[in-house]
Amino acid sequence: MENQAVKEVSVQRFRGAEAGEAPDVLAVEEPLEIRLEYGPAGNRIVKNLSVTMRTPGADDDLAAGFLFTEGIVHEASDITGMRGGENVITVALSPDLAIDLQKLERHFYTSSSCGVCGKTSIDAVKTVANCSFSDKTKDWTIRPEVIYGLPDTLRHKQATFDATGGLHAAAVFDTEGRLLALREDVGRHNALDKLIGHYFRQAAVPLDYHILLLSGRASFELLQKAAMAGIRFVCAVGAPSSLAVETAEAFGITLVGFLRDNRFNVYSGTVV
Amino acid sequence: MENQAVKEVSVQRFRGAEAGEAPDVLAVEEPLEIRLEYGPAGNRIVKNLSVTMRTPGADDDLAAGFLFTEGIVHEASDITGMRGGENVITVALSPDLAIDLQKLERHFYTSSSCGVCGKTSIDAVKTVANCSFSDKTKDWTIRPEVIYGLPDTLRHKQATFDATGGLHAAAVFDTEGRLLALREDVGRHNALDKLIGHYFRQAAVPLDYHILLLSGRASFELLQKAAMAGIRFVCAVGAPSSLAVETAEAFGITLVGFLRDNRFNVYSGTVV
Repeated sequence: MENQAVKEVSVQRFRGAEAGEAPDVLAVEEPLEIRLEYGPAGNRIVKNLSVTMRTPGADDDLAAGFLFTEGIVHEASDITGMRGGENVITVALSPDLAIDLQKLERHFYTSSSCGVCGKTSIDAVKTVANCSFSDKTKDWTIRPEVIYGLPDTLRHKQATFDATGGLHAAAVFDTEGRLLALREDVGRHNALDKLIGHYFRQAAVPLDYHILLLSGRASFELLQKAAMAGIRFVCAVGAPSSLAVETAEAFGITLVGFLRDNRFNVYSGTVV
Repeated sequence: MENQAVKEVSVQRFRGAEAGEAPDVLAVEEPLEIRLEYGPAGNRIVKNLSVTMRTPGADDDLAAGFLFTEGIVHEASDITGMRGGENVITVALSPDLAIDLQKLERHFYTSSSCGVCGKTSIDAVKTVANCSFSDKTKDWTIRPEVIYGLPDTLRHKQATFDATGGLHAAAVFDTEGRLLALREDVGRHNALDKLIGHYFRQAAVPLDYHILLLSGRASFELLQKAAMAGIRFVCAVGAPSSLAVETAEAFGITLVGFLRDNRFNVYSGTVV
């Protein structure tokens, strides 16, 4: 079976004073162009929306997750079909869905952000994300033992990551620490879009009672996507940024960082 | 002295069965809106170009480096002035500089890429970058001992990185391994734009006889920027992607990856 996410190459390997040819495995990075088809029947328009550098695989989930976390589609039925070519995917939208072209263009020169300070960036997310949150998980807590165990569970399942060292992972777990879904990509935002898109297409958002684990750092963009998907508990193996913490606080998301080696820090919200 | 790149916070710290309040330091992430002012005297136009999430500091270098590596400006004198506000920077371009608005818009929906396969992405870089390369360093080699030493030299200078664990670094060294310049940012592409912008504004590109070291992984976007700056030797502490290797090969760039603990792999070109 061909794995299109990795590519085998030959490298010159240096180890101290030794050098020699050796096989190696790379994470594949290729552009994906996302096109929208929209408008009333008989007057459909196709427009190039964006190109993202991604690892091939689950392109339909990636496109759906991207459109949802950017606020362009709101429920699974807004997407009526998807057709793919080589590194191109065209998403057909419901004729009933209103598309604001100016907002689209604004989105793509602002590249996932919409303001000129952290606060306006967060406010821009709020205008589209507020409805995503369920009240059910507002006051939940998770046992520290469950949190400590997440990175090991992820690592054991992450076959591709181990081989290349070049992929970011995003995974969701239940409150007992059982892995529910895992996606990988050279771009960490793409890994998360693939994961959220998978659930969005099944009409399974907001992701109540789910814990999100990110294999690297936590940025504003990743917290924005988590907020759009209604995830209230986010753990990162790496460091969070200042704006990631502020976004978590604004949405009532518990944010855990530096989760490794039986340690972690809580940057927003509470754990126990 | 205030360091606007970091922010002090209080966290709840878990260590096995222990938990308690502790101080922590975050890498600051804030949006920067880049605006262009261009056109003939008496008929100047100001246009929002992009918003990037960056760590504050060296915004002028970041804007200049971004415009140069995106192919919008070509030499230092194309920029006649820069004025900053809070998280906004307006770059005034020479009245003589031709600006292709369509190309600009195309750029920002394609987000640093321009095609629908790896090859067209590389070709798009070639059309603007070919002139950046000097022939002088075409056949140079670097001693492995010099390469092994680069990460330690970087780490000793990286005060901010050590404090937050949340910043990417890009640094250039001479052929003897002496550090010449280092820039840090929550976005790895921003760290590299700040570094290249610093040299571009002094009319010091192409960067002959410079070694570029990246603190993380090597993606297409980073190799594209290195190519624009005429850098022929790129080392990454992390893994390169498939398209990063293909881009390095297309431009005759030596690409070293997994450079750590007295080990590295050569993915493109030769070292000795």
